Amino acid sequence: MQQILPLDRSKQSLIQHKIDTKTKPLGALGILEGIAMQISLIQNTESPILSQPHLIIFAADHGVALHGVSAYPQEVTWQMVMNFLFGGAAINVFSRQHQIQLLVVDSGVNFDFPPNAKLINAKIAKGTAPFHLQAAMTSTQAQQAMEEGAKIVKKIYETGCNIIGFGEMGIGNTTSAAMLMSFFMQMPVVDCIGKGTGIDNKGFAAKLKVMLNAYQLHKDLAGKEPINILAAVGGFEIAMMTGAILQAAALKMTILVDGFIVTASFLVAAAMQPAVKEYAIACHVSEEQGHQKMLNFLAMNPLLAINMRLGEGTGVGVAYPLIQSAVNFINEMASFESAGVANKLY
Amino acid sequence: MQQILPLDRSKQSLIQHKIDTKTKPLGALGILEGIAMQISLIQNTESPILSQPHLIIFAADHGVALHGVSAYPQEVTWQMVMNFLFGGAAINVFSRQHQIQLLVVDSGVNFDFPPNAKLINAKIAKGTAPFHLQAAMTSTQAQQAMEEGAKIVKKIYETGCNIIGFGEMGIGNTTSAAMLMSFFMQMPVVDCIGKGTGIDNKGFAAKLKVMLNAYQLHKDLAGKEPINILAAVGGFEIAMMTGAILQAAALKMTILVDGFIVTASFLVAAAMQPAVKEYAIACHVSEEQGHQKMLNFLAMNPLLAINMRLGEGTGVGVAYPLIQSAVNFINEMASFESAGVANKLY
Repeated sequence: MQQILPLDRSKQSLIQHKIDTKTKPLGALGILEGIAMQISLIQNTESPILSQPHLIIFAADHGVALHGVSAYPQEVTWQMVMNFLFGGAAINVFSRQHQIQLLVVDSGVNFDFPPNAKLINAKIAKGTAPFHLQAAMTSTQAQQAMEEGAKIVKKIYETGCNIIGFGEMGIGNTTSAAMLMSFFMQMPVVDCIGKGTGIDNKGFAAKLKVMLNAYQLHKDLAGKEPINILAAVGGFEIAMMTGAILQAAALKMTILVDGFIVTASFLVAAAMQPAVKEYAIACHVSEEQGHQKMLNFLAMNPLLAINMRLGEGTGVGVAYPLIQSAVNFINEMASFESAGVANKLY
Repeated sequence: MQQILPLDRSKQSLIQHKIDTKTKPLGALGILEGIAMQISLIQNTESPILSQPHLIIFAADHGVALHGVSAYPQEVTWQMVMNFLFGGAAINVFSRQHQIQLLVVDSGVNFDFPPNAKLINAKIAKGTAPFHLQAAMTSTQAQQAMEEGAKIVKKIYETGCNIIGFGEMGIGNTTSAAMLMSFFMQMPVVDCIGKGTGIDNKGFAAKLKVMLNAYQLHKDLAGKEPINILAAVGGFEIAMMTGAILQAAALKMTILVDGFIVTASFLVAAAMQPAVKEYAIACHVSEEQGHQKMLNFLAMNPLLAINMRLGEGTGVGVAYPLIQSAVNFINEMASFESAGVANKLY
């Protein structure tokens, strides 16, 4: 895996000066000013641009889905992939709205899709093994998934893209994400579990039991190599996103992080190469209860908090125009001097 | 003033059904689902549209600005109006980004503007009187300002606009807004005062003194007719926005509320006709400390909380695409049935 370099901060004071002389009180654009700074630093320029924005949805199935952890049946994974391809899902709506190129990747869905130009076939296997009974995948598969993710990002980068968001689909994947959270944040599973798509009490009990058993089975991995933990309790879409995220940062792309599951991938990536954080923007905080804790752990401040919990990259989709606003203000606003506006009295 | 009717809720369950059968877990789009419902109810349809969005900036000067309440000199008001007309301010950037029609109204700026097609002349006077020494304006002027605001909105409505946001510019106007907050929320001025554009300790002391004196002078108005309080401590831009907001609701337009000062206008409007709240969306919560308290008082849940405190309608500008997203998802997403996706197991 390519090394991720820390941001070049040689232009930081020039960029800050440009932000501070815009016709507005100091700091008055709040978080947008921080985003303008971050993207300028990533691109090492005072005039950043967002070029060819992409959103990649990684989809895969999970062995634990057959053990009562979700309110939806496993076939919803492939059915939603078809929905993405036909343009009817929430993320299709938001991507169209903001001219974000949407790609769908079969990372390991338990279904044979008919060939489709919009679907990238990177299937590792037809779903993971149930990780409360055995490892979700082999380390070789985890490695392979990460490499596939990296390869996909590299191809997109070569088309001129410099900003990329990630989304996911996979019935059962909040269980996997919560397990990764537990391992990487060293937090009891009861503090990581959430209601996912909306399970009832019985579903919650089943999910908790699977998680407790999985922890028992794999607990010797705590604090060990990230890739082994990823293999033990991850998912193919999650591992692929981890590779994709690391590759995007290595290429100095701006990374848009979605909700609970994408952030779990990001936790793994940050454990492997902490500098990845400098390239990432947390687009929203999900209603899934563990997500805010993850963002706290990563010291990331989410742009939106609007009670969403849908996945698919929808947090990225709705937050994207605010990121555009940050780039637009630094490029387009007049300065006090150019507009002939008097500055502060003191 | 025309009467504002409560929302027609006869289609509410039809609309809710449409939202709930979209391919997503129930409620998973969070606040966007509430906005989709609200706009659908306002328009009394299951297929709402946003037509000809407008943002109107009302600008005026304040007598108290000459008494040390702001970090900026009074001439910044007219200079920023010129900046709006030349397209260099933050709100110009965000309005262009989202194709929102921006209009600027001179409600009472202390300057003679050269004629400009983009500037509506509705000047009541060249700034208010300093309200810690006398009433800011006469009741006749307050009435006139409200009528002008209503007239402007009516004209815009007649061009086919059904969604309208408000912004403001006026050095000293957080002092006026904080006074209105104190009167309409019956809260001590020390709990309403904030740092505005960023005053230092000396400025804060001057602002507090003006506010305490103003309260002493006008306290007999507490609990009396809203228009008299508005005349005593309001501003021409604030009074004009109050009239504009009431007219927009009477015409069943969706109203986009910006930050501290616009919300102060809204407080006055809601005191006059509480049903106005059903037509309004709080676009963001400002860093100005009183704003969250105002929104709590009005029971309005802001869409964004990104530490902005710029005014001009910038909160509306950056939040607008999320409102579009709400309307887009209800119109464009597939249903479980149309997409052939299995619904919840329980």
